[in-house]
Amino acid sequence: MDTFQLDIDCVIEIVKRRGARCVGLQFPEGLKRRAGDVAEAIEKNTGAAVLISGNPCFGACDVDMQLAQMVDIMFHFGHSSMGDQGNVVFIEARSDADPVPAVEKALEFLDSHRIGIITTVQHAHKLDDVRDFLEKRGKVCVTGRGSSRVKYPGQVIGCSFDAARIDCDELLYIGSGLFHPIGAALATGKRVVAADPLTMHVEVVRTDKVIKKRSAVIAKAMDAKSIGIIASTKSGQKRMALARELKLLAEKHNREAAIIVMDLVTPEQLLNFKFDAFVNTACPRIAIDDAGRFHAPMLSPKELEIVLGEREWDITFDEITDTEN
Amino acid sequence: MDTFQLDIDCVIEIVKRRGARCVGLQFPEGLKRRAGDVAEAIEKNTGAAVLISGNPCFGACDVDMQLAQMVDIMFHFGHSSMGDQGNVVFIEARSDADPVPAVEKALEFLDSHRIGIITTVQHAHKLDDVRDFLEKRGKVCVTGRGSSRVKYPGQVIGCSFDAARIDCDELLYIGSGLFHPIGAALATGKRVVAADPLTMHVEVVRTDKVIKKRSAVIAKAMDAKSIGIIASTKSGQKRMALARELKLLAEKHNREAAIIVMDLVTPEQLLNFKFDAFVNTACPRIAIDDAGRFHAPMLSPKELEIVLGEREWDITFDEITDTEN
Repeated sequence: MDTFQLDIDCVIEIVKRRGARCVGLQFPEGLKRRAGDVAEAIEKNTGAAVLISGNPCFGACDVDMQLAQMVDIMFHFGHSSMGDQGNVVFIEARSDADPVPAVEKALEFLDSHRIGIITTVQHAHKLDDVRDFLEKRGKVCVTGRGSSRVKYPGQVIGCSFDAARIDCDELLYIGSGLFHPIGAALATGKRVVAADPLTMHVEVVRTDKVIKKRSAVIAKAMDAKSIGIIASTKSGQKRMALARELKLLAEKHNREAAIIVMDLVTPEQLLNFKFDAFVNTACPRIAIDDAGRFHAPMLSPKELEIVLGEREWDITFDEITDTEN
Repeated sequence: MDTFQLDIDCVIEIVKRRGARCVGLQFPEGLKRRAGDVAEAIEKNTGAAVLISGNPCFGACDVDMQLAQMVDIMFHFGHSSMGDQGNVVFIEARSDADPVPAVEKALEFLDSHRIGIITTVQHAHKLDDVRDFLEKRGKVCVTGRGSSRVKYPGQVIGCSFDAARIDCDELLYIGSGLFHPIGAALATGKRVVAADPLTMHVEVVRTDKVIKKRSAVIAKAMDAKSIGIIASTKSGQKRMALARELKLLAEKHNREAAIIVMDLVTPEQLLNFKFDAFVNTACPRIAIDDAGRFHAPMLSPKELEIVLGEREWDITFDEITDTEN
């Protein structure tokens, strides 16, 4: 089993150094079970009062700013920093898992000589091991710098695949899940091999299924007369300017359009709104991961442009750029 | 079928009079389906830009302050004001339903002469009709003033039953659901007849089932070693002082305790936290309505005191007082 290391000594040291009297803690869902112990360790070692965020947390884009305003310092666990956020300190979760065995298995799937390596923050500290291993096997390894939304070379997140846009023949993704490697494949048009250090599963990612699904959602939205445009208030997902542009664009094409401002975007929460289709300017994963669960088609911004005839029918994942948020 | 009247002409008039350029709209779940039409009416008649809150909304205690900060004026629909909230204007939803037929049916359930009448905001404008009808039948009707959390005589909400604490022999509740009349019965110890103007259902409320359920929850929490104390950030549910007191109290009794700060409190959202029991200082209804759905006992503040041996075993619903929030 994989375990994630959180540097609690470092957290205690920072609390002491800054003389913080009230400390906030925010964990992603998978780490919330550790909240009680971390809070206790801080209170016992520093005397500071601790408040734990109970709200859902899905990334560095999802900082609990309300809690941050209530405390002297807030620690956001599990993700790398997405730029300066005042009194918020990011404490990454690093996976213990050795990626090399999975990469060894991936060798037979790799077709090319020049390999671009991409990963998530949990494995970013092990990329040198991956590179060493592959270069000993005669490969040339390259990593790209991502946008300002990521911290490490080679790091991709669900809304930014810039680190995959590099001069290589093929991409090797180190990590779990298929969202990131499929996103990278769609963003670059390159062949992507995904290697999971936790399950040891290796596969060449296929984009045809997701393209078919997205095409079906777009087709369903073609007759939509009213469009609900979702704008997020989450710290790293705010794209109000884009939402306003899309509203004007929809109205130009004789659709009724309204902007819906919300924090957490879920199929349940939209159920009561009567719009024929929705567009999501918040986290790009929502439209993809929950595709079948919305009561009306949930489009990405570019997919709305396709629906309105303003863009060629070409499926890519939505990305949030440096300048937008 | 019942319909709720929303005074949109009044909304448009206020937008024009205040010269608002950006308008926020917040609806409770049951009225969200009207959001698109209301937004369109405002935009067409005033030229103002409209933003709709997509977040869950469960009462006047649940004002979307983030949206309010983004707009010149925000209309909160469906609930009566809970005191001044800056640029937030409350637009009540009034039920068309005539309460008199249900009250006529309730006559045979009423045992006493002096009847205290309580209701929710949707029916508050019809209480005079109820009084007229009952007084013609020889009853004496009284209504109480609630706390500052409610607006109308006789009005109760899920966290404040002060309007039921009046000099009467028996209470008559006009409205839907059993939460309010059960709350009133527990708060006053009086017999309560509930009459629903929408379904015409009339019954004498029984508190034994809810007392049994709460007793079971309290019993389950007796061995809890760790307690998660929930403090809400919702505009009308903030009781951080109470949360801190409960933490000290739990620690005094050798329990580990941590304060969890959150917006929406749901069984799903607490699932990842490993505490043996929770205490909810936010909306009192949550612990009652979702009682069976939490993975660990969810107590009210007073129920925690019972668990810790600081209070007699006596079940009442939690109420939020004027001075607390």
